[in-house]
Amino acid sequence: MEVIYGVNPLREALISGGEGVTRIVVARGRSESSISEIRTLAKQRGIPVEIRERSFLDDLAGHASHQGVLGVCTAYRYQDLDAVIANRHPSCPYDLVLILDGILDPHNLGALIRSAHCFGANGIILPERRAASVTGTVIKTSAGAARHIPIARVANLARALDELKTKGFWIFGADARADQSVSDPDYQGAVGLVMGGESKGLRPLIRKKCDDLISIPMLGKIDSLNVSVSGGIILHEIRRKNCPLSFTT
Amino acid sequence: MEVIYGVNPLREALISGGEGVTRIVVARGRSESSISEIRTLAKQRGIPVEIRERSFLDDLAGHASHQGVLGVCTAYRYQDLDAVIANRHPSCPYDLVLILDGILDPHNLGALIRSAHCFGANGIILPERRAASVTGTVIKTSAGAARHIPIARVANLARALDELKTKGFWIFGADARADQSVSDPDYQGAVGLVMGGESKGLRPLIRKKCDDLISIPMLGKIDSLNVSVSGGIILHEIRRKNCPLSFTT
Repeated sequence: MEVIYGVNPLREALISGGEGVTRIVVARGRSESSISEIRTLAKQRGIPVEIRERSFLDDLAGHASHQGVLGVCTAYRYQDLDAVIANRHPSCPYDLVLILDGILDPHNLGALIRSAHCFGANGIILPERRAASVTGTVIKTSAGAARHIPIARVANLARALDELKTKGFWIFGADARADQSVSDPDYQGAVGLVMGGESKGLRPLIRKKCDDLISIPMLGKIDSLNVSVSGGIILHEIRRKNCPLSFTT
Repeated sequence: MEVIYGVNPLREALISGGEGVTRIVVARGRSESSISEIRTLAKQRGIPVEIRERSFLDDLAGHASHQGVLGVCTAYRYQDLDAVIANRHPSCPYDLVLILDGILDPHNLGALIRSAHCFGANGIILPERRAASVTGTVIKTSAGAARHIPIARVANLARALDELKTKGFWIFGADARADQSVSDPDYQGAVGLVMGGESKGLRPLIRKKCDDLISIPMLGKIDSLNVSVSGGIILHEIRRKNCPLSFTT
């Protein structure tokens, strides 16, 4: 079970369809004026609203900064690592797994999931800690792709990379300082692509595990691209090298 | 002058450095508890905070839904169209202008500005209406790139495309339905790239003005990539075709 708390996040989740929201809990005595829109949207979506003591909401949220309103959601269903690795797209000529080492922003995570799906990836691997998990905002930003592509969450990302290697995957790490351009490798065979987090990039241990590091050549005073843009560019290059002709279905 | 209103947007603007915020106005009699963080951040950034009647805030914001707190900012300085066209990057082998036809999400606009700068574009053209303008959130998401690349805002985007054509630009439009792949053209000469808005893509009049339409080949059940990701991929391809070797400076 997951909980969306606060007026704005809950309102946004309902505006985007309220997917996975099973009920809404409002604190007894809470002012109604600022949640009238939430009530209207809940009614439209057929989601029940119940009144409970504030302490009940504190327990559900695990803290008290919920502004007196919560949405209770079904949790996103993660897959295990083997299911991700085995999920080769039937009309896709390659195996491709995207590994995200500490993406914090839900919009970036959603966009990366969307791109991975659009470029035919088998699935995605996330770490359990210090990273965004798949929430309603992420599913929305992924344009629903998070429902179409398996995502695994692992306790130890380095071990997951070892597992991929034993299964024949070649691991590329995106690193702005790498000498090798994203356009150089031929990306033949099974590919694992590791993208680092927004601020720090790849962690040293994860970088060491990579078979190859690649960067995107560019110009300008800014250090690097947004991570979801970099990820999209590299996934596009992997697709381009493997199937020169369009394979849009 | 621009105004940031509401507790959260103002708090975010201050957390990200408070760039351009010249003063903060709080409504007389407003509860202090929820703006204590804003007061602390303002003090750290040396931004004065003044107390005024609520009607004064209504006038500044142009409406009453400001939650009793406003940040007054210097407006972003747009350039004119000629300045954008003329701003060829000294170490860049091509002229490249990015035209955005109705991007609504500030995060997408910021990421597109960042990518345009990273791939050596001369500048960016935005329409005056039905599109996000360059706000603090956009500047933050652009990682500051909005301060390094000129951006013009025009009343009539179709006329701006005509202007680019008379100056020798070849106009490519990104269209998910186009038969031509993004990797096909050689992008020689001066290039204008038009990206449509998040939900509707290119408007018909703007599509007609394009010399060529291009799409990004992909697979999957999702209609298309996030617009800032598509934009990044196409800008990368334009760079790749024009300068096969890395030109990172």
